[in-house]
Amino acid sequence: MSTSSVSKDLQALETGNYLLDFLWELGVREIFGVPGDYVIHFNKVIEEHKIRFINTTTENSAGYMADTYARFKGLGVACTTYGVGMVMANSIAQAYVESSPVVIISGSASEEEFQRAPCIHHYVEDSYTTQLEVFKPITVDQAVLNDPKTAAEDIHRVLNNCLLHKRPVYIELPRNMVDIDLIPHQYEKAKEKESNPKQLKQALDAVYKILSKSQNPVFWLGHDITRYQLSDLATSLAEQFQIPICSTVTGKTCVDETHPLYAGVYQGKVCDERIRNFVESSDCLLSIGALWSDVNTGMFTAQLDHLEQIRISAREIQIGKEKYDDIYFVDLLQAIQNAKWSFNFQVQYPRLDHNAIKSYQASPNSPSKTASTLSCIQKYLSDEHIICCDIGDCLFASTELVLSQNSYISSSYFGTLGFAVPAAIATQLCYPEKRAIAMVGDGSFQMTATELSTAVRFNLDPIIIVLNNHGYGTERPLIEGEYNDIWNWNYAQLPSLFGKGKGVRVETETAFEDALKLALSTRGEFFLIEVELEQLDLSGPLQRLSTASAKIV
Amino acid sequence: MSTSSVSKDLQALETGNYLLDFLWELGVREIFGVPGDYVIHFNKVIEEHKIRFINTTTENSAGYMADTYARFKGLGVACTTYGVGMVMANSIAQAYVESSPVVIISGSASEEEFQRAPCIHHYVEDSYTTQLEVFKPITVDQAVLNDPKTAAEDIHRVLNNCLLHKRPVYIELPRNMVDIDLIPHQYEKAKEKESNPKQLKQALDAVYKILSKSQNPVFWLGHDITRYQLSDLATSLAEQFQIPICSTVTGKTCVDETHPLYAGVYQGKVCDERIRNFVESSDCLLSIGALWSDVNTGMFTAQLDHLEQIRISAREIQIGKEKYDDIYFVDLLQAIQNAKWSFNFQVQYPRLDHNAIKSYQASPNSPSKTASTLSCIQKYLSDEHIICCDIGDCLFASTELVLSQNSYISSSYFGTLGFAVPAAIATQLCYPEKRAIAMVGDGSFQMTATELSTAVRFNLDPIIIVLNNHGYGTERPLIEGEYNDIWNWNYAQLPSLFGKGKGVRVETETAFEDALKLALSTRGEFFLIEVELEQLDLSGPLQRLSTASAKIV
Ligand SMILES: Cc1ncc(C[n+]2csc(CCOP(=O)(O)OP(=O)(O)O)c2C)c(N)n1
Ligand SMILES: Cc1ncc(C[n+]2csc(CCOP(=O)(O)OP(=O)(O)O)c2C)c(N)n1
Repeated sequence: MSTSSVSKDLQALETGNYLLDFLWELGVREIFGVPGDYVIHFNKVIEEHKIRFINTTTENSAGYMADTYARFKGLGVACTTYGVGMVMANSIAQAYVESSPVVIISGSASEEEFQRAPCIHHYVEDSYTTQLEVFKPITVDQAVLNDPKTAAEDIHRVLNNCLLHKRPVYIELPRNMVDIDLIPHQYEKAKEKESNPKQLKQALDAVYKILSKSQNPVFWLGHDITRYQLSDLATSLAEQFQIPICSTVTGKTCVDETHPLYAGVYQGKVCDERIRNFVESSDCLLSIGALWSDVNTGMFTAQLDHLEQIRISAREIQIGKEKYDDIYFVDLLQAIQNAKWSFNFQVQYPRLDHNAIKSYQASPNSPSKTASTLSCIQKYLSDEHIICCDIGDCLFASTELVLSQNSYISSSYFGTLGFAVPAAIATQLCYPEKRAIAMVGDGSFQMTATELSTAVRFNLDPIIIVLNNHGYGTERPLIEGEYNDIWNWNYAQLPSLFGKGKGVRVETETAFEDALKLALSTRGEFFLIEVELEQLDLSGPLQRLSTASAKIV
Repeated sequence: MSTSSVSKDLQALETGNYLLDFLWELGVREIFGVPGDYVIHFNKVIEEHKIRFINTTTENSAGYMADTYARFKGLGVACTTYGVGMVMANSIAQAYVESSPVVIISGSASEEEFQRAPCIHHYVEDSYTTQLEVFKPITVDQAVLNDPKTAAEDIHRVLNNCLLHKRPVYIELPRNMVDIDLIPHQYEKAKEKESNPKQLKQALDAVYKILSKSQNPVFWLGHDITRYQLSDLATSLAEQFQIPICSTVTGKTCVDETHPLYAGVYQGKVCDERIRNFVESSDCLLSIGALWSDVNTGMFTAQLDHLEQIRISAREIQIGKEKYDDIYFVDLLQAIQNAKWSFNFQVQYPRLDHNAIKSYQASPNSPSKTASTLSCIQKYLSDEHIICCDIGDCLFASTELVLSQNSYISSSYFGTLGFAVPAAIATQLCYPEKRAIAMVGDGSFQMTATELSTAVRFNLDPIIIVLNNHGYGTERPLIEGEYNDIWNWNYAQLPSLFGKGKGVRVETETAFEDALKLALSTRGEFFLIEVELEQLDLSGPLQRLSTASAKIV
């Protein structure tokens, strides 16, 4: 998108339409939300615009969908009336920490209207700015569009910051402003920070020096690779130097995992021992776009201090002991690529056995387990599938799936339950020709299950796999108690609640395989498979995690 | 509760138990919430305590339940793990504006743990205090209990402020502190502000003067009456002076509505014309504990400027033109009562015809309407019923019900959808021998319907009346569009999802009456009645409201 392409075509000057045209040019085709009287006028403007409004059952789900949309399309929008959209705090905080460019648009009363009589519904007494204050700590920029003279400039600045920082922003649109013409303002696309050429050269030299001394380096790639569209660059570097690739959990599928150089997710003591041994016995870690969070480092069980480290991400550049603050990280990666160094490491690594991965055979009468369920899913996965993963054992178990590029999404940093179902719905909107498969524990599912109503309404057909271990399984190994139990639903009954969709409950491996095959071949409505599990059925990664984190609760 | 009763019996000194003992002594018997690893240690301590933990399906519902509990029992508690409980922002903002003393207890990482490695799940990067900042604008006091030396004092201060201001407070309990002994601190119950005796005298004289000149004064009572337990006082003043009573929506049932002096809810142009004419043609308004909000004043259609006004509430004291800042409002009300003035107004007012109210006869084959549904409910209501009302037409229609004291609860100031079902569940816990009747539109119901799972789990048996007008009926008269439609569920199927409960769908007046009779006689499980309505079926009050507010959207 060039600088001029956005400003030129913008004809409408009424604030509401101007904002929508601008979002349209930035790629937004759907806006998620719930109406309400402070925003209904804007809802009408959306209805008359090319952008489609997707009603959700709650505002927080709209936030999850906007987050998903942002991850796949580069920008997502959630739209709410004033005050009662604060329930979105979870989804917005998630978008904040997971670098997802989400725009909140909130309707509001006009400032004069409020000053005249501040005791009005959805407002928090005596303050016109409560909602702004609530969202401030979890957004990177904010604007209240109450002045036609500055509204265009505010819109430009806030959206620029959203795209530049890949973080949520907050726009408040007072209802009296929706139709008011704003004063035009020349849009200039924000530029990434300019790298200091001298520092860039120094950093490049430092990388070269470390690589020169290295025998068996390894890539550890994170979600900046996805967010900054660097998958091709990362893959080609790996190929050029013949360096194997691991990813973080948060960065999962930032490159094609069927690539011969891909070894798996490295996650300290939580990942497979072979991957752990391989990474921890290499001599140089190329941590690119990776977040060193608790989950990504296997609750800080990653043992990487003895490795030489090259850390290049949106957050930090550190090469060996040296930090570089004046470089835009993408410039450095491009410089490395352009340098055309002739390294050829040919590192030995635990190569994935793709035949074995696809060779799962269900045993008749064997009770379902998380591990076998995922092996079965793996067998049928192809490029057209996108996994939407919730928090719980499904998150940990799913790290071992082998997936194609950009086909996995989760809340693995913020870690809020209830993301998978809304995410699967938004995914179907992003890629109608693909198929979203939500993997979700019973506890997470209960948080946002009503959103299946949205799938039905908009004719979307995600597959929902409810891993029903009867409670908060991830928590049982920490401190067991009744608070970890949840009420069991007849999940497969949900289609009769919504009047559409299919639901199946399975208890064995073969039954699951049959159900999955049926789900994959049935399009046009959601398909829910409830997988009955034992309460203490933990996947391998979760077993290892529980050992690692039981100590710190 | 005397000053000493709280401090003396507290034996436990471990921070977690100390907090629980304190809450117990303040009347808390149930805590609502969802567990998580930062709070699970405290969950275990709760499990071993006399206080019961009620699991909810989402944290925001836990907030609604704590709010309900607070309104009925004087203090309510919602407990969450860190970060992902921010979804509670709606319920906490509601508690804030509706003067409900709710305590949020959030688990957290210890500060040292966070400083060592800030990139941890549920935290918002680089800041230990994000959640505190998010909740600050919607709580009246906050504490992070990270110091055993000050923890007891912090607990005392924060809970005092919660009770004194009747507003939510925020307590963060780092997981390392749960078992740590705190340093004892002498509890002193906070005192209400002391009234300046001179001002009190002046105010009393001013009230006397106005009343002396009045012929036909009227009470307009609000929710401070309920929150400060002034129902008896208010009723006896009305009886003493023979002044009729109206209430605000937010204050509904602050006195017994079957009292002969009770005329109804006054709400500007939204209420029944007879009540409006009566109030607006009286010569003096005794606005006691009333909130002059948009909803309470019928979107500011109340015409009261020509009346002499005596406004006495927790927020303001104004008598005629004079404001009094140095008086605790309850002192003034007590002074009025103690003065034993001999006024006897014998005001003429539209007396409720209790026979007519109970005389509803269902017509066979007449399609259900909101108005007839409420008339039918009215017929069967007795002292044992509590109405939990959501936002939507049910709120406006319900203003015309005649109910017993303290038997109605709604979110009529903040106005967040989805309150009624969680509220009904918490009500059943507060009053197991009574019966909560939730009235809820289909849109509101979809927001928190999953919470029926909590009712089932804890063997609670609210009656849920889903007024299904197929969409956001309240909004259709404002600006109609597809965004006002919602997907229709087979609501009566919910019992088969949860494996318990009863569900009935009705389309006619007689079918509703039969269903309601069955519901009232069936105890032990929830009973849901879906009432099929026409899309544009609006109750009388909502019709009047729509006319009043269509202009301002
Ligand atoms: C909104 C929210 N509330 C609470 C938590 C704390 N939490 C983390 S994992 C977990 C259990 C999830 O249960 P389930 O979805 O059934 O998956 P399982 O652990 O059984 O695999 C909970 C409650 C959270 N992450 N998010
Ligand atoms: C959480 C929340 N989101 C949005 C709104 C805005 N809103 C107010 S009334 C209403 C419609 C409610 O529909 P329903 O519950 O079906 O009741 P009805 O209006 O049809 O009587 C909406 C969406 C709100 N009050 N709360």
